Amino acid sequence: MALGEAESDTDAAETLTATVIGGSGFTGGELLRLLDGHPNFEIRQATSRSYENKTIGAVHPNLRGRTLRFSDPAELESVDVLFAATPHGVSMERIDAFSEAADTVVDLSADFRLNTQEQYEEWYDGHSSPEYLEKSVYALPERNREKLPGTGLIAAGGCNATATILGLGPLFDSELLTGTEQVIVDVKVGSSEGGAGGGAASSHPERSGIVRPYAPTGHRHEAEIEQEFGISVSFTVHAVDMIRGASATCHVFPEGPVSKKELWSAYRESYADEPFMRIASGGSGVYRYPEPKAIAGTNYGDVGFELDPANKRIVVFSAIDNMMKGSAGQAVHAANIALGLEETAGLAFQGLHPVGAP
Amino acid sequence: MALGEAESDTDAAETLTATVIGGSGFTGGELLRLLDGHPNFEIRQATSRSYENKTIGAVHPNLRGRTLRFSDPAELESVDVLFAATPHGVSMERIDAFSEAADTVVDLSADFRLNTQEQYEEWYDGHSSPEYLEKSVYALPERNREKLPGTGLIAAGGCNATATILGLGPLFDSELLTGTEQVIVDVKVGSSEGGAGGGAASSHPERSGIVRPYAPTGHRHEAEIEQEFGISVSFTVHAVDMIRGASATCHVFPEGPVSKKELWSAYRESYADEPFMRIASGGSGVYRYPEPKAIAGTNYGDVGFELDPANKRIVVFSAIDNMMKGSAGQAVHAANIALGLEETAGLAFQGLHPVGAP
Amino acid sequence: MALGEAESDTDAAETLTATVIGGSGFTGGELLRLLDGHPNFEIRQATSRSYENKTIGAVHPNLRGRTLRFSDPAELESVDVLFAATPHGVSMERIDAFSEAADTVVDLSADFRLNTQEQYEEWYDGHSSPEYLEKSVYALPERNREKLPGTGLIAAGGCNATATILGLGPLFDSELLTGTEQVIVDVKVGSSEGGAGGGAASSHPERSGIVRPYAPTGHRHEAEIEQEFGISVSFTVHAVDMIRGASATCHVFPEGPVSKKELWSAYRESYADEPFMRIASGGSGVYRYPEPKAIAGTNYGDVGFELDPANKRIVVFSAIDNMMKGSAGQAVHAANIALGLEETAGLAFQGLHPVGAP
Amino acid sequence: MALGEAESDTDAAETLTATVIGGSGFTGGELLRLLDGHPNFEIRQATSRSYENKTIGAVHPNLRGRTLRFSDPAELESVDVLFAATPHGVSMERIDAFSEAADTVVDLSADFRLNTQEQYEEWYDGHSSPEYLEKSVYALPERNREKLPGTGLIAAGGCNATATILGLGPLFDSELLTGTEQVIVDVKVGSSEGGAGGGAASSHPERSGIVRPYAPTGHRHEAEIEQEFGISVSFTVHAVDMIRGASATCHVFPEGPVSKKELWSAYRESYADEPFMRIASGGSGVYRYPEPKAIAGTNYGDVGFELDPANKRIVVFSAIDNMMKGSAGQAVHAANIALGLEETAGLAFQGLHPVGAP
Repeated sequence: MALGEAESDTDAAETLTATVIGGSGFTGGELLRLLDGHPNFEIRQATSRSYENKTIGAVHPNLRGRTLRFSDPAELESVDVLFAATPHGVSMERIDAFSEAADTVVDLSADFRLNTQEQYEEWYDGHSSPEYLEKSVYALPERNREKLPGTGLIAAGGCNATATILGLGPLFDSELLTGTEQVIVDVKVGSSEGGAGGGAASSHPERSGIVRPYAPTGHRHEAEIEQEFGISVSFTVHAVDMIRGASATCHVFPEGPVSKKELWSAYRESYADEPFMRIASGGSGVYRYPEPKAIAGTNYGDVGFELDPANKRIVVFSAIDNMMKGSAGQAVHAANIALGLEETAGLAFQGLHPVGAP
Repeated sequence: MALGEAESDTDAAETLTATVIGGSGFTGGELLRLLDGHPNFEIRQATSRSYENKTIGAVHPNLRGRTLRFSDPAELESVDVLFAATPHGVSMERIDAFSEAADTVVDLSADFRLNTQEQYEEWYDGHSSPEYLEKSVYALPERNREKLPGTGLIAAGGCNATATILGLGPLFDSELLTGTEQVIVDVKVGSSEGGAGGGAASSHPERSGIVRPYAPTGHRHEAEIEQEFGISVSFTVHAVDMIRGASATCHVFPEGPVSKKELWSAYRESYADEPFMRIASGGSGVYRYPEPKAIAGTNYGDVGFELDPANKRIVVFSAIDNMMKGSAGQAVHAANIALGLEETAGLAFQGLHPVGAP
Repeated sequence: MALGEAESDTDAAETLTATVIGGSGFTGGELLRLLDGHPNFEIRQATSRSYENKTIGAVHPNLRGRTLRFSDPAELESVDVLFAATPHGVSMERIDAFSEAADTVVDLSADFRLNTQEQYEEWYDGHSSPEYLEKSVYALPERNREKLPGTGLIAAGGCNATATILGLGPLFDSELLTGTEQVIVDVKVGSSEGGAGGGAASSHPERSGIVRPYAPTGHRHEAEIEQEFGISVSFTVHAVDMIRGASATCHVFPEGPVSKKELWSAYRESYADEPFMRIASGGSGVYRYPEPKAIAGTNYGDVGFELDPANKRIVVFSAIDNMMKGSAGQAVHAANIALGLEETAGLAFQGLHPVGAP
Repeated sequence: MALGEAESDTDAAETLTATVIGGSGFTGGELLRLLDGHPNFEIRQATSRSYENKTIGAVHPNLRGRTLRFSDPAELESVDVLFAATPHGVSMERIDAFSEAADTVVDLSADFRLNTQEQYEEWYDGHSSPEYLEKSVYALPERNREKLPGTGLIAAGGCNATATILGLGPLFDSELLTGTEQVIVDVKVGSSEGGAGGGAASSHPERSGIVRPYAPTGHRHEAEIEQEFGISVSFTVHAVDMIRGASATCHVFPEGPVSKKELWSAYRESYADEPFMRIASGGSGVYRYPEPKAIAGTNYGDVGFELDPANKRIVVFSAIDNMMKGSAGQAVHAANIALGLEETAGLAFQGLHPVGAP
């Protein structure tokens, strides 16, 4: 709960206990920030092997002054909800223990996003707990809100997949796309996607100021998009000079003519009632289309579009914070729904303006 | 009030109406963000001559989707509190109208920070409403908390002065400094200090990547520091490549020997009970001293220090967000106290980690 | 000529006089830098209406200490070569005067890039000197080397068009593309493309850290690409956080299967003998594909490619410095050829490593 | 020698062979860039344990296309000049072998900068080859030009020390400072100072956008400044968001009154004839004082100053590229003088404008 918040305001019945596994990583830190400001969660445990006994603020300077200390990930307390923010492959090994510790497990890795063992064999290195795959629900509430209440295992979507799915969703919902069209997605991402570990390519002198093709083809998030829409997608990812943010530009070529009005209808239909989706598509001023700066640090997803009649093309722009809507924010949003809390609880804040490379 | 917040939770008596003058500028936008998320304020009016009738989100993309529109600054409604975020010189001309519109006026310009007309003649271009100077209270709660309740005119401090005053305050409070010592302050600031207007020196190609001496000597905020402590200060300001943030490094030379322990006592004494002050002074990890990234977007002030025995020097580091603790956050904080609200209301959120040039 | 260079080394017959029109702009400054270090050119005149009588170093701090002063653009001296770096529309008005002042005119604007008045009516606002259009040669030496010697009017290509043409050229040369295929080009550019003027969208606080769709469709450089290859191209441009650089990612879908070996052959065939073209396509280390950082400040163009068999796609990456290979460097390179000088004269220097947002 | 340069222009007697030890590091790469473009040097050998047999362009993307490969540092060829760009402590162990391989050794580490073993015991971890200390010459030509010709061991100065010494030098030369005054130096540096290794604090997400006190007190370069001027200096270093650059702001308090005219005389006296020193001190336009952007990639040092009469203070600004004037450029400059070459050979090029975080 946040600094200065009157505890008495919160109905005791609404306070749930939470654990964050992998709390010293980037998305783990983001979960700690969100839960710290959430009216209904109390952080019971944040685990980190490397930083055991250090305060969470010693690693995450935004949380300087908080007294919670990292604990050993081997010793899990029983809590209401467990968020796992570990590297790919860890959760599938520890999922039994996680499920024992909490009725609701929200996993932020790729371990439970795909539906079948075959997909994990194609895109990853197989799966050691395939029996959980059919139980897990892909978190993204804008696609799966109705499946979330009461679910025991939630898989937060991949950041680049989330940006793309949010951009393309309304075109499929409205049947402006049917699945046979050519879809090219050109994504630009920040350095936090590489995680806290780093390496030569992530060092500041090498990573600053870049426009670097880091996944020319074959990025694993492609699998999530194809699973969602049943299409094949030409997917390329560039690293650019920001820390947070995933910006997906989708170039799609519908079979027949499409009007601007149809596009507006499609996006409004899908997103008008969504608390975290906003449409930015032209107009005046500096910020006419989605861009990561405008939503950095928040759970918002901004989408927009343009028509290119000369090329029979629709261009769709989508921007999220990869660590928020693309990970920890999506996780908390889904947990709120799964647990029957106010959907926007702990996520109802705005980003910054102006702000730099967020 | 924030998205999704249950209105019924708020006692009607606690909802106060607010106006933001100059709402399309950077600090005006920051006020709108803060009031939007504040449990006790309802924004009644945001004025902007240039953007009249545009939504606030058309200028501030973080507020995209908000329905409030800018109104004509000439037509002020009667409200509980009026925040003025106008360029220097405007508030002193309009202060009668502001005071008529609201019992509590919080001015974010330099117009009411100094105590006397003489100071305005020395540092600015004089003052057209000097009769208000003795009524106004310098906002900084860490220095003036007891003067704020019930006051009708509050002057939010200058960002660079605020950073410096927060850094040096404990040394004067503890009498480690007495006012006769040499004090050199070397400040590094972000581009938002230049305001939304811009100019050649603020254009991205010219302003990026700089370490630029922009006020080698004679910066006007020097007057606020000298007023606070009764000292003369050697003050130099550099512009660096960030958007938000003011980082003050104070080099001071106490008369006699000072120990690290005395420094810790001094800073703890001054700040242990302050909800927005944190001490960061050594230790392990990446973030050992105050830096603007760790507090960007928040109302926190981080301070730290080191001893240089070889040179009989104390080095003090202080970091704030110039638009928050150095302007809009300080204004809301002071307004909370002035109006008898929870001191941290609307300001109880954390910054981001990781984050780039915030 | 560069600092410290022994003048006696240069054969008098090889020293040509040069004028730079619009010398206070970004590409004008780049021309001054290049000519300053060029063994065969002596800058006779640099014009600027706004900065008349100021030294060139007062505007371009890299040239601090140079004694040349800006002169009135209305008074042109007779020189061997005149470079015009003015906004679009100026050169077409002044081309008679330019041609009178110099036998060789190199124009860096868009005024002489397209072949026909019809194109100018479609893409620009028409053309006031259409009689020059058939005389002008599009500069890009990798495409037009043989047309340049002795030509009197050279049009340096648009930066985004240049990046794209250099990327796609070998596919057309080798007939891996025939002109009927779908070509999607997603370009990322720096802020120097906006020129020295600036505006709200170019101010540092608004422009930093962005991934901003600034030309979703209909960018004028599309016309140059279509003219070069006789194709229609789906072209979208994003502004990202760098100052120099244009990075084009081309997604193309050849009719039949293409092998990696065929791609290597195509690119080597086109570029092995080109002094300023380099292929970067995979391998180990941090820098595996073209990126603007690696060529910032130079006349190099780096190109690379990958196959995406699952989508029958070729992805081509191309990176240039928009102010060099995409403007002033291309201009000097073409002038060298046109005037019978050593092709690489004045351009034979390397970029920096490491370097930030160049 | 640079691309396209006519070899026949160079007198055979003037071509000297060179080795770069530690060629895969940042300053090693900078040496390779400089020697590649130098009319009098031919690189015979570039050593790197980690990258043996890789081309130099595989590590330094600016040198992409060069055919030279890294060789084993254990097998040194006999050359005219050997540049050692290794971490501190390596050169003192290998200096006998270096001296055997080349008559002229230029060391870029700290190993031969200080005069006495006692200094190495105080500031470093002692010295294993103290007999070389009295033979070595501190490279900085602006201070030691007359000592360089014919010397066998040259120690390139530390970057932060170089920036400071260049800034303060004229004040001591002109006796405006005598050595008893208080001198405070507040330095801002880029991430390349940390070298190619990196670490958590150097990772892009943690290092971007910072103003970070990284050496509050006790930085080792202090020793070089104190050695040069015989003074004690209060020295503090901040890391800021750039890659290249060291910017020193010196706050000094002369005994008696000093006029602006005296300052101009002092700096002109010291630097008017220096090919790489420029004075930037006020005036109009965007770039009024030294800043790293204006000299990034070059061997220039820019210095400037202001008077603060109210505080009896002189503020001196000094900006260099830490990898050039602060390391590799200084090394080549000194080698040119030591070997009787044209002093500016291989260094006579300008920086870029505009340019970002260089």
